[in-house]
Amino acid sequence: MLTNVEHIGIAVRDLDASNELFSKLLNVAPYKSEAVESEGVTTSFFKVNQTKIELLEATSPDSPIAKFLGKKGEGIHHIAFEVDDIQTEMERLKGEGFTVLNETPKRGADNKLVCFLHPKGTNEVLVELCQEIKE
Amino acid sequence: MLTNVEHIGIAVRDLDASNELFSKLLNVAPYKSEAVESEGVTTSFFKVNQTKIELLEATSPDSPIAKFLGKKGEGIHHIAFEVDDIQTEMERLKGEGFTVLNETPKRGADNKLVCFLHPKGTNEVLVELCQEIKE
Repeated sequence: MLTNVEHIGIAVRDLDASNELFSKLLNVAPYKSEAVESEGVTTSFFKVNQTKIELLEATSPDSPIAKFLGKKGEGIHHIAFEVDDIQTEMERLKGEGFTVLNETPKRGADNKLVCFLHPKGTNEVLVELCQEIKE
Repeated sequence: MLTNVEHIGIAVRDLDASNELFSKLLNVAPYKSEAVESEGVTTSFFKVNQTKIELLEATSPDSPIAKFLGKKGEGIHHIAFEVDDIQTEMERLKGEGFTVLNETPKRGADNKLVCFLHPKGTNEVLVELCQEIKE
């Protein structure tokens, strides 16, 4: 089940400058910053009620964010929905004809297991499913 | 004050087809459809917890959505933040250096007063402020 819009990911070129900009826009400071080496990104998070705004800066030219910036420029990159059981949700969505970009949930930022859906099947919206890791 | 991610707007070419697609994705049916003639769009809304997904189809070639589709294709079009007092928030944001696209709040879909910020000042993210109209 998709239970919440967990976060909206925004690709930025300069995380420091964008942290300042979004602090003014949202009138709140980012509550954390985190590097995700496997994805080649540094992220920062702002909270607005139950949804986070995640800024993503590329740390490597191979990063999906670097490629996105090169192709489309800065802007909204993905929507992440919180799910209660990622494996069940992946199976349900595959059954509905959606294509997952990773067959096995992978570790993302902010203590989450994540899976992306192919945007060709979702009106060009990059959709992330994420489930909190309970340890 | 920005109190919530009220909705995420997604530009689509064929609202009927996209309603079907997003019903499968979100596992819920759209709860309403609404034409906004002044903007040249037909919209439909899905609810995920406290945030809505708004699909937007252009009904006229002059519609901002028609122009967006022509330039960028389908995909995420804007993020809308709920505000408690739109006029106060517009003044605050102008004071912070943001540019509003309409100086006077205008009537949007879903019984809202809305104002857009110029994406050049927000990392190319089209930001909407919206306040529920109480009648």
